[in-house]
Amino acid sequence: MAQAKENTTASATERRPQGPGADARAQQRARRPLYKRPRRPQPQQKGSAAVPIHIYPLGGLGEVGKNMTVYECCGDMIIVDCGLVFPDSEMYGVDMVIPDFTFVLQNRDRIKGLLITHGHEDHIGSIPYLLQKIDLPVYGTRLTIGLIRNKLEEFNLAGRTRFVEITPKQKLQLGCFTVEPIHVNHSIPDAVAFAIDSPAGVVIQTGDFKIDYTPLACGPTDLTTLAEYGRRGVLALLSDSTNAERPGFTATEQKVAAGVHNLFTQARNKRIIIATFASNIYRIQQIIDLAVQEGRKVAFSGRSMVNNTAMAQELGYMHIPDGTLIGIEELNRYAPEEVVLITTGSQGEPLSALSRMASSSHRQVRVGPGDFIIISANPIPGNEKSVTKIVNGLLLLGAEVIYESMYDVHVSGHACQEEQKLMLTLTRPKYFMPVHGEYKQLKKHALTAASLGIPHSNILIAENGSNVILTQDEIKLGEPVTAGAVMVDGLGVGDVGNVVLRDRKHLSEDGLVIIVATVDGKTGRVLAGPDLVSRGFVYVRENEGLMDGAQNAVEAALNRCVEEHVRDWNSVKTRMREALSSYIYRRTKRSPMILPVLMEV
Amino acid sequence: MAQAKENTTASATERRPQGPGADARAQQRARRPLYKRPRRPQPQQKGSAAVPIHIYPLGGLGEVGKNMTVYECCGDMIIVDCGLVFPDSEMYGVDMVIPDFTFVLQNRDRIKGLLITHGHEDHIGSIPYLLQKIDLPVYGTRLTIGLIRNKLEEFNLAGRTRFVEITPKQKLQLGCFTVEPIHVNHSIPDAVAFAIDSPAGVVIQTGDFKIDYTPLACGPTDLTTLAEYGRRGVLALLSDSTNAERPGFTATEQKVAAGVHNLFTQARNKRIIIATFASNIYRIQQIIDLAVQEGRKVAFSGRSMVNNTAMAQELGYMHIPDGTLIGIEELNRYAPEEVVLITTGSQGEPLSALSRMASSSHRQVRVGPGDFIIISANPIPGNEKSVTKIVNGLLLLGAEVIYESMYDVHVSGHACQEEQKLMLTLTRPKYFMPVHGEYKQLKKHALTAASLGIPHSNILIAENGSNVILTQDEIKLGEPVTAGAVMVDGLGVGDVGNVVLRDRKHLSEDGLVIIVATVDGKTGRVLAGPDLVSRGFVYVRENEGLMDGAQNAVEAALNRCVEEHVRDWNSVKTRMREALSSYIYRRTKRSPMILPVLMEV
Repeated sequence: MAQAKENTTASATERRPQGPGADARAQQRARRPLYKRPRRPQPQQKGSAAVPIHIYPLGGLGEVGKNMTVYECCGDMIIVDCGLVFPDSEMYGVDMVIPDFTFVLQNRDRIKGLLITHGHEDHIGSIPYLLQKIDLPVYGTRLTIGLIRNKLEEFNLAGRTRFVEITPKQKLQLGCFTVEPIHVNHSIPDAVAFAIDSPAGVVIQTGDFKIDYTPLACGPTDLTTLAEYGRRGVLALLSDSTNAERPGFTATEQKVAAGVHNLFTQARNKRIIIATFASNIYRIQQIIDLAVQEGRKVAFSGRSMVNNTAMAQELGYMHIPDGTLIGIEELNRYAPEEVVLITTGSQGEPLSALSRMASSSHRQVRVGPGDFIIISANPIPGNEKSVTKIVNGLLLLGAEVIYESMYDVHVSGHACQEEQKLMLTLTRPKYFMPVHGEYKQLKKHALTAASLGIPHSNILIAENGSNVILTQDEIKLGEPVTAGAVMVDGLGVGDVGNVVLRDRKHLSEDGLVIIVATVDGKTGRVLAGPDLVSRGFVYVRENEGLMDGAQNAVEAALNRCVEEHVRDWNSVKTRMREALSSYIYRRTKRSPMILPVLMEV
Repeated sequence: MAQAKENTTASATERRPQGPGADARAQQRARRPLYKRPRRPQPQQKGSAAVPIHIYPLGGLGEVGKNMTVYECCGDMIIVDCGLVFPDSEMYGVDMVIPDFTFVLQNRDRIKGLLITHGHEDHIGSIPYLLQKIDLPVYGTRLTIGLIRNKLEEFNLAGRTRFVEITPKQKLQLGCFTVEPIHVNHSIPDAVAFAIDSPAGVVIQTGDFKIDYTPLACGPTDLTTLAEYGRRGVLALLSDSTNAERPGFTATEQKVAAGVHNLFTQARNKRIIIATFASNIYRIQQIIDLAVQEGRKVAFSGRSMVNNTAMAQELGYMHIPDGTLIGIEELNRYAPEEVVLITTGSQGEPLSALSRMASSSHRQVRVGPGDFIIISANPIPGNEKSVTKIVNGLLLLGAEVIYESMYDVHVSGHACQEEQKLMLTLTRPKYFMPVHGEYKQLKKHALTAASLGIPHSNILIAENGSNVILTQDEIKLGEPVTAGAVMVDGLGVGDVGNVVLRDRKHLSEDGLVIIVATVDGKTGRVLAGPDLVSRGFVYVRENEGLMDGAQNAVEAALNRCVEEHVRDWNSVKTRMREALSSYIYRRTKRSPMILPVLMEV
């Protein structure tokens, strides 16, 4: 890190955050205090060697999603982010996965607040579940708070929650922590990193970031402030690893602007339908600007698109000239070349607006040869097949479809290797912890840090539940704390566990067969049944021979039990199950779940 | 197509197929006749305008996999390929999907033979299921026949099947069809295209192909013969669309040789474990050559790797110097720098050898910091997450892992756009049908053909079951024939249909609750129950309150039925189901499958 040059940020110092957020923020500053002033001055230089700071990652390590980190120093605690992760394909029927809050609840009295870096689901999605269990003030920038408030309203928690709006460069005091939000670029406005100053020293957590020298609004990542912290001494950096495998720099959002502009020209007299993330306010604004320029009206489709854009307008993050916005129900009153429809569904989500268009089941939008459709997003790993399905569907309807890397219609929101190097070089941390990523990404990020001269012994790849203890002298691991994945299914939080998932997997692969019989409790005589009921096994009407044989196998087993005077019902059930299981496997090489039920009268 | 220049293939005409296959083939030619000689001379030029040829694609259109095409002319039929496709994530518990053979069985007496382009599963995987229903001679090159024979042996069908070994440039007569196999490059040796000459004219079906000017063996795709057909006149071309979205040329396999060579150097004193496709005999040979050069022993892991390499050696497609090959059980007797382990699992298959190594459950191989692991394959769409899981597992064990596009360790086996253009330009077809691909790929390939000057009206994107009727004057669609996807689950072929899949999906998402009660058939009195049994719903021991409430809801419904003297058992069941369903939904927002069973005594 010796080679870090402080003048690399010279040009950045001349920029100031600008755009929609800046004016609004200035007004607010005049209106009311947005944060507590520091209670006491903090030591300018590094903290006491004796005082440790503990970092407990409760999510986001070894996974992409459910980011959550707890900091502890001198008995005080703060939490940074509280996100969710979407279930993987083995989590049958699960809606989402949230962090295990046990450790937080154990320390509820010591927690001073919940700080949020930005408004994406993997950073805010679990907040309602945390606030159901514990009251905490929530600190976030204006747009972030807006998104959280929307979410909490669905859970009837908005009213009782204290929100504290924060602004970059304005420090907050939470217990012994002094936290400064630092403006960073990302694919949603109002994202910040946190410089967390404590008696043990300064820890910088970047949140999700990239470095865009020419963003559409709000200026580049605040390299100057990061450099200033670096100059004064940073104990540790926790930095976004999402793109740690990608060399180079993430391109500027301006590139997308140019790409989309070309496509607008290419679309000529067709209707334009463009799918992107509902949270990517910059991108949506840019599409609106192009639409206005080309004299097209704009409509929104998809619940999150409608809600997010409404809120972004209300808070001043999005500007739509009067007369531009039309309701989706008005769409068909205009000629194709007069409209742009901005929609959700860029990830192929089966119930999204774009998916319904592709399967001709959208109530207001019929796709056909007059449509020019742009998918302005890359498929997140795991979503490739769903996106392909939608593209095929739209092409089959005759639409022209621009998808994937065919044109420059998408850039990532995360830093690539060169940006990660810049972050490391500016902040000059003594210790480095890669965060936000699968193990392979954390590992790559660690190698990148090592290539800059950070000693291997000062780099730590932690895991969820690690207790990382940092002082000026060392980085070490203490006793781990409780951490894990809690599955949410409908209203149930944590009531679906491994046993239930194992059963769901079994049922999904081979279905089930139920055996029911009624027996006389005194004599052991069979009064009714055994009857077989199956679901998800074979189509019974076309497999009567198989099902008759199965019935015979069970009856034979039950009769043998009666003959042998077996009166222990569990043994009877086991013998029926085994007889049926082996008959079915012999005939089909399948192993459906078999459930024997005996009723005693 | 007017701009097609015949001299573009001048350099190619000087090359001859060479390498392991060439000598072997020469020997064979001397030994016995491998094919029937043409019965009668075919007209050199195009066929009679009055005689149509029908092309019936039964698989491979609008999908990647289960390629199968039937040709019909003057009452004779031939089949090209008979592949399978692996199930998508919605096909719960299904092992594989094969084409619907109804149309073939309806025409069994007219079919002269089954011609196979190459030995990949998506071209041969369904042969056993077809030959279970109908006897057909199977035509394929030597390696292809070897792979099919292995497969048929598992089904006890090898003995009764007549195999006809074919060789490029040697024509076959099947009814009115004269078929010439044409050597093409692909990621498995011995792949061919077919020039199918008929009274209606010549149709060329490429099979899977790419154009490699410097392949490791057997010479480049036989451009000369393709050009010769083009000169004489080709009625239609059916060409591989897999890479239709990729511009440029697929790189030569030599590039992989260079990339892997560099990695061998980089691995230094570590054990090398390299995962690739078991059918990619060229790649495996090249790894063996490098191992020999570096003085390392070679071991194979994974059933298909062991079987395929044994057969390839036996047939002369693979050469392993004496003393090089060791059994996997001998692996630990050697120092790490003395061995290379070649394994399956490059696609992250959960039960593959590499997957077991990643989860420390492989019986003979313990992965650790002394391992240098290369994944020499790109993830097929849909497999990204499984591959990532394995990479994370191997990295966590301390191994160095080279994966994805980090180095040049993999090239595709399919033609990109420039190669597709070359194929179109050499063969100069009157009509063009893109095949082998999802709709978006077929569409792209059609656009590529149009860009070369083939009129849009002469390009047809057909679908499975289309009846494409071709004469010198027109291309048109006749009445479609039966085609579809037949699911194979264990021994069951076609006994899992949409009803069963819908049930499996439902069970996988929310589990099930069974209600059982025994009633007196005369009085309607409840003799036992109602009892509830659930699986895959909630973890019952931790949700007793919910389950008690459910029990009460069902009892109340049943008691009401008794009070109201409802004696129609179906009504009773419906009322119990509805009561339980609404109770559960209210409490959990979930909808498990509910199965009421009433036993009458």
